[in-house]
Amino acid sequence: MEPLKVALLGCGVVGTEVARLLTTHADELAQRVGTRLELTGIAVRRLGRSRGLEIDPGLFTTDAVDLVKRADLVVEVIGGIEPARSLMLEAMAGGASVVTANKALLAEDGPTLYASAAEHGVDLYYEAAVAAAIPLLRPLRESLAGDRVHRVLGIVNGTTNYVLDKMDSTGQGFAEAVAQAQSLGYAEADPTADVEGFDAAAKAAILASLAFHTRVSAADVHREGITGVTAADIESARRMRAVVKLLAICERTVAADGAESVSVRVHPAMIPRTHPLASVREAYNAVFVEAEYAGELMFYGRGAGGQPTASAVLGDLVSVARNRVGGHFGPGESSYARLPLRPMGEVSTRYHISLDVTDRPGVLAQVAAVFAANGVSIDTVRQQRRSGRDDAEGLTVGEGQAALVVVTHTASDAALSATVESLADLPVVAGVESVMRVEGD
Amino acid sequence: MEPLKVALLGCGVVGTEVARLLTTHADELAQRVGTRLELTGIAVRRLGRSRGLEIDPGLFTTDAVDLVKRADLVVEVIGGIEPARSLMLEAMAGGASVVTANKALLAEDGPTLYASAAEHGVDLYYEAAVAAAIPLLRPLRESLAGDRVHRVLGIVNGTTNYVLDKMDSTGQGFAEAVAQAQSLGYAEADPTADVEGFDAAAKAAILASLAFHTRVSAADVHREGITGVTAADIESARRMRAVVKLLAICERTVAADGAESVSVRVHPAMIPRTHPLASVREAYNAVFVEAEYAGELMFYGRGAGGQPTASAVLGDLVSVARNRVGGHFGPGESSYARLPLRPMGEVSTRYHISLDVTDRPGVLAQVAAVFAANGVSIDTVRQQRRSGRDDAEGLTVGEGQAALVVVTHTASDAALSATVESLADLPVVAGVESVMRVEGD
Repeated sequence: MEPLKVALLGCGVVGTEVARLLTTHADELAQRVGTRLELTGIAVRRLGRSRGLEIDPGLFTTDAVDLVKRADLVVEVIGGIEPARSLMLEAMAGGASVVTANKALLAEDGPTLYASAAEHGVDLYYEAAVAAAIPLLRPLRESLAGDRVHRVLGIVNGTTNYVLDKMDSTGQGFAEAVAQAQSLGYAEADPTADVEGFDAAAKAAILASLAFHTRVSAADVHREGITGVTAADIESARRMRAVVKLLAICERTVAADGAESVSVRVHPAMIPRTHPLASVREAYNAVFVEAEYAGELMFYGRGAGGQPTASAVLGDLVSVARNRVGGHFGPGESSYARLPLRPMGEVSTRYHISLDVTDRPGVLAQVAAVFAANGVSIDTVRQQRRSGRDDAEGLTVGEGQAALVVVTHTASDAALSATVESLADLPVVAGVESVMRVEGD
Repeated sequence: MEPLKVALLGCGVVGTEVARLLTTHADELAQRVGTRLELTGIAVRRLGRSRGLEIDPGLFTTDAVDLVKRADLVVEVIGGIEPARSLMLEAMAGGASVVTANKALLAEDGPTLYASAAEHGVDLYYEAAVAAAIPLLRPLRESLAGDRVHRVLGIVNGTTNYVLDKMDSTGQGFAEAVAQAQSLGYAEADPTADVEGFDAAAKAAILASLAFHTRVSAADVHREGITGVTAADIESARRMRAVVKLLAICERTVAADGAESVSVRVHPAMIPRTHPLASVREAYNAVFVEAEYAGELMFYGRGAGGQPTASAVLGDLVSVARNRVGGHFGPGESSYARLPLRPMGEVSTRYHISLDVTDRPGVLAQVAAVFAANGVSIDTVRQQRRSGRDDAEGLTVGEGQAALVVVTHTASDAALSATVESLADLPVVAGVESVMRVEGD
């Protein structure tokens, strides 16, 4: 059989590793596919840049459109919306299958791409878009295809996990930890996409779409980043034997009348130190999937980096090449369930609220009354002097200002927001220091 | 499109859950497959037994051969070698795709079945054969198809993990812990297949075959069970801040001349308490996969039980049904690499050796000389009085008998065996109490 022509779009950290794997593992890949994968070209923006590895310089081109037209299989690792989208649509219209790691594009405009794949009878695979080499999308799409997923919960952004882990282990503030992550290459010069949760939100949208057979875009994801997480929050979590993590949470909820809906959110949350996600350190990723019959599954590994991402890309490339050899294509988009998205106000979690209050008798009663008036039930409350050495016993009221830490039972986001507003209006409350969700009990 | 006819062979713990899923989730499954899955019959050995659930009694039959002949898709959850093998071969010869959870059969005679699937152009899927609902085989076969797996290491038998976990947490002996596991339904009345490592060895053979693209049968697996693990071993592990686990280990080794070989083994081993596998409690399973580009991945979940196994069966059933709808079939056996199996004598690990010795000066020197003569390097040694309160400081030599605990650096199995033989012949050594491998550093 003729070799399959592979076009590589982009030659950054991931692209160079993809090119290297295609070259060094060529014989093995041929055995696994049933024919050779021939790298016919690498589209880059500018020629002449040193790629620091042994790739045939003749492969590089700036004419991506021409390259795509001549390919059987296209690997897109440029990232971003354009020109990635146009090139992928061009590739599929020309009959090529596409493998991509582009989470932002899939989360923004996936349905356009899935529709093109279906229309032209080609594959569009994207395992590398979420958690790099950790197999997550194929398990959701295939292994759990006979089950019903209730919940996907995990750490899907390595940069923020690194930052929060450093804040926890060293007591550093947010800015300091980000600077350290940048100096070590774990965070980009402009860390916005990571620290504001955009990257995690795109991944959550992709995971939710697959888990619930429902279209979910990045815009549907409730998103809060970690820029507001302070050293005091981390310390407060420590007192609760908890740790702060940026979580992506996709949930299916069944109402009393049987109506189902899904919620998808990304936000920092406190989780108990005994929870398996609490021990996910540095830039690692880990995701729990809870399904009706399978129970709780966990997937763990390196969720970013050139080599792990290239591993996922190549796994997909072998799959779509096998399909090509067999003259068919794999499962496409599955969005038949069309479950409605639950508004964030109706999503229920537990909350950890830290208040600056006047330190005098009766304050706790006033605060508790506000919670009660909004139907939010209190689990624990801890009062501590704002200045001087904190009282580890809690609940000791000193003179002047004090910090009041309240952990609630499950409450809706709307009820909690109303509570926080009322608290801020209370004369004895000098300020609402922080509000953070509590997960993983 | 016409519904696909599904024949279910076996209606035990797994079969009843498969039947229930096919019934209660019929609409969802139809959406995911593209046509309905119609359960046309359930082959059982005897009619009339209560199955304790709402399955149409008219579906039961004792004529498995007739049922198989009329099916598009056959689910085999009888277990064991015969009649499972004959029925699966009959099914494939008749053009039906097969989904099975039968690890024993696949590990004993997989190639016969894979060849039949290839000959008749049908699918043979078996995700449920290893670690139930934890997606492991599909990730190895597809997600990591573009990578090179170096090592698979994990806990793949829930029964033995439950027993070892209880011995560790309660100080119980082996027999007592097995009895408790039996009373709770975690161990069968005859626990041989689990405690002697046969079940784990079958799973290891399947994992190694997929990981290394090489045929590995159960007979190729070096197998040691946990019946010889004593409360003293567990206690000795505790002193090393380690825990004893029954591990399945599949490794690719590259010799100095570049020649590759694989080793596959199942045995109890001490692993550090800080290792993620150490925290796998009760009947859970967890498997590490180390690949060249992906790095270290971990998969965790419930590795046994009716519902998790049924989840894996249904995932496969949806895949093979989709293939049937699309008129093609998925990847078959991949054994092109044909890597040689490394003899166990050449496999290197670290060892923990516990000796009963005469408690007098000079003994340690004699023992150390035996290790040196066999080329086995000692990492640590700990000497303690056999009776009375153990000396937590170690290395204190009292009167009479003493226990000497030696942990080696990496040594070959052959060198270690020779060492142990020489030690047993040493007059100052009253007995070799235990020899256990140390993994996970």
